[in-house]
Amino acid sequence: MRKGKGVELGMDLEPFFKPKGVVLVGARRSPGFGFILPLALRRQGWGDRLFLVNPAGGELHGMPVHESVAAVPGDPDLAVVIVPAAAVPPVLDEIGERGIRHVIIESAGFAETGQEGVELQRAAREVAGRWGMRVIGPNCVGVVNTANRFSTVEVVDEALCPGPVAVIAQSGVFGNILLDGLHQKGLFISKAVTLGNRMDVDECEVLEYLRRDPDTRVIMMYLEGAADGRLLRETLARVTREKPVLVLKSGRTQAGRRATASHTGSMSGEDDLYEAVFRQSGAVRARSLEELVDMARVFSTQPRPAGNRLGVATSSGSLGALATDAAVESGLVLPDLDPASIDRVRAIAPRWMNVRNPLDVGPSGAFIPAITALVEDPGIDMVLSIAVMPYAVFHEFKERGVSVRDFLGIASGIRDKAPEKPLVLCSIGDEGFVRDLDEAVGPEVPVLTSPERAVRVMAALWRYGKTRAERV
Amino acid sequence: MRKGKGVELGMDLEPFFKPKGVVLVGARRSPGFGFILPLALRRQGWGDRLFLVNPAGGELHGMPVHESVAAVPGDPDLAVVIVPAAAVPPVLDEIGERGIRHVIIESAGFAETGQEGVELQRAAREVAGRWGMRVIGPNCVGVVNTANRFSTVEVVDEALCPGPVAVIAQSGVFGNILLDGLHQKGLFISKAVTLGNRMDVDECEVLEYLRRDPDTRVIMMYLEGAADGRLLRETLARVTREKPVLVLKSGRTQAGRRATASHTGSMSGEDDLYEAVFRQSGAVRARSLEELVDMARVFSTQPRPAGNRLGVATSSGSLGALATDAAVESGLVLPDLDPASIDRVRAIAPRWMNVRNPLDVGPSGAFIPAITALVEDPGIDMVLSIAVMPYAVFHEFKERGVSVRDFLGIASGIRDKAPEKPLVLCSIGDEGFVRDLDEAVGPEVPVLTSPERAVRVMAALWRYGKTRAERV
Repeated sequence: MRKGKGVELGMDLEPFFKPKGVVLVGARRSPGFGFILPLALRRQGWGDRLFLVNPAGGELHGMPVHESVAAVPGDPDLAVVIVPAAAVPPVLDEIGERGIRHVIIESAGFAETGQEGVELQRAAREVAGRWGMRVIGPNCVGVVNTANRFSTVEVVDEALCPGPVAVIAQSGVFGNILLDGLHQKGLFISKAVTLGNRMDVDECEVLEYLRRDPDTRVIMMYLEGAADGRLLRETLARVTREKPVLVLKSGRTQAGRRATASHTGSMSGEDDLYEAVFRQSGAVRARSLEELVDMARVFSTQPRPAGNRLGVATSSGSLGALATDAAVESGLVLPDLDPASIDRVRAIAPRWMNVRNPLDVGPSGAFIPAITALVEDPGIDMVLSIAVMPYAVFHEFKERGVSVRDFLGIASGIRDKAPEKPLVLCSIGDEGFVRDLDEAVGPEVPVLTSPERAVRVMAALWRYGKTRAERV
Repeated sequence: MRKGKGVELGMDLEPFFKPKGVVLVGARRSPGFGFILPLALRRQGWGDRLFLVNPAGGELHGMPVHESVAAVPGDPDLAVVIVPAAAVPPVLDEIGERGIRHVIIESAGFAETGQEGVELQRAAREVAGRWGMRVIGPNCVGVVNTANRFSTVEVVDEALCPGPVAVIAQSGVFGNILLDGLHQKGLFISKAVTLGNRMDVDECEVLEYLRRDPDTRVIMMYLEGAADGRLLRETLARVTREKPVLVLKSGRTQAGRRATASHTGSMSGEDDLYEAVFRQSGAVRARSLEELVDMARVFSTQPRPAGNRLGVATSSGSLGALATDAAVESGLVLPDLDPASIDRVRAIAPRWMNVRNPLDVGPSGAFIPAITALVEDPGIDMVLSIAVMPYAVFHEFKERGVSVRDFLGIASGIRDKAPEKPLVLCSIGDEGFVRDLDEAVGPEVPVLTSPERAVRVMAALWRYGKTRAERV
């Protein structure tokens, strides 16, 4: 069945993201997905193309419940299955009979739970194969497409605000909570897929689909183990030539691998092999979940730098020193400033300011001229600006009606002065200040909250650009 | 002058934290510290022991401004100096003449700014030495003592809520913004000191003072360079026998060292030497600012574990796998569970649940029994609980008036079942859920937001306990 029938990799996934009509098998009156998903889909505008199925029939949230898939009217092309695991194989038969060829199985209780579950998954696959179905899952929460507000999992409304980042996750719970939190970190998505046990559709097909997806500029992926290592390397190599793929891979240690085996039934294999796959294919590996998220934010908003020469402007010397250490450890260099840049900053800086890189402007108020000088310096490829302000000062300005934007003089103009150079802000301290700063600079310039991670992410962006340039 | 006169290290710092009366030299009507600090000190209850000085005289915020230090009434024993750098030496003379022997110089423009500043700092030290003064600074924001609400820097009110953690920072801005943000991360402090250029009082004296401070249980320190490496090692070795000292040290790279030299005039030296100092003395080194903060939260609330055997309970298998990888990489082990624990969990777990370590409870609702079983397992020394919940579920519970506490059944009783075992929670996803969880579990159990960092911090706690046991 898989990738057979002459269909090109990932070409037939479209109905998962853009269904004409959706059958929900397992709608229920009791708490759980079967209860909340119909409500969520209707709220998202799918009420007229949504068909609920439960043998009990009747009504749910004022919508008719059909007693069988066969009884569903219209021309649905996608089924979402949330019935107990044992009922899945016969339900797949009903779905096949009804002419539906795309199915998302959200139910758990398959290969991740031991021998009995393995058998059940084999039975389900056998039925699906007989009908030529494409299946996402089981043991997942399906897909999200923000463009048409189609989501087979209820997420917070803001998570459906369209953006350039696609998410691939193996696990349903993880994918769900990740989506719930991303918008609060300034990250908005194009599409999301949770793959679960991957009895059919796998990460390679989805990667290939997302490569061709015009709404997606960056792909972030949480992976426990690949279904096919060689295919993964080939697919990543193709995709990363066009779009960055950011990967967080667990199962680095033996204990971690045991954990994933009992979770999505993945055999995660040796980490050295994966490391080689990612390196050879130009994928970018994140060291932690927080790094993955910060990477997605920076990669989706900033250009690829021409080189590894970092300029740092900071209102805290200590944070500048911490960022400098981490930058050098990540392979970046902090070059001396161009004489012309030094003159420009000296002209407006107080006498006590040391005009060098990192450029510690302290409380001088020369923050924006300093960033501007760095951005325009021909010897600098990318700029990190560390903007912090004591609460007392922030509070005083707020009381006088002076906004962070007024005070720092942050103009979107800076981003335009050198559109080819990545520009990242970092801030810590009072959360109110950090939030105001984030709003003031707008979505084009990410505001991160760890100086060390900010420079590591910038180093990853440089390395990705370098690899991509060498490979094209 | 320094540590001379037979005074034991750090014994004569008391008036910095518990002054009888404070002279503020450099009170002003224009924006800045000279304007806001009198207001802040009065709000904190120091109005009756605060004496403002400015040659212009008159009134400020309704308080009299004295024309000279000599004109100040009463019996003040601490002076805070915020006049321009060039005016500091003569002001120190005035202060000495008035019989005051403890001085905080907040003014910048000394050794951190080049040769002229170095000369000025030498002149100031000469005057202070002549009067036998103890001096904190220059180029700092002084001290905070939450017990008596004395603070020579305006911080957000919540930062003055007393807690067990002392903060030592070199830089003023950094110390200030750190204090502004810590309470939002659930961290409350006993005392804080920003040392600035350390023309007299240094980190060793403060460490020794904090060792004897009954309000301080944990010391966190940001250090750019030590004044005296051998003294630092000896002091740390003595202090860490009684209280953990958590250190974030910049200047690991040459570029980072150059950055600190122009910032607080520190010569930060070779990192290998510092690494040896910290290792030999039992200090705990943080790899990033976020790790330092998380360490302080865990070290100040959790007991030292008897061993490195970690139990993990999680409602997301993926996050459990990520934590497991990081735990093993940090030197922890995830042992098999005790047969009795397995039986206890099996008795209440659904059939699909794999009862092992890490223990993935999924959406079973068996979260609290799982944590309880781990906490009581004789083969487990410490427990990490990863509690996440999809927003949709959280939202549904909220609508029905069910709190996170009700749902997870989090009882403070768990903490009491094995008071000798560290217990840490971790959560990500919707910020509202994370906040509610934090409130539900209370201050005794820290809620961290990175599974990887959580286990690294627990590994550091185990290593500190081990080193301390071996050294006593």
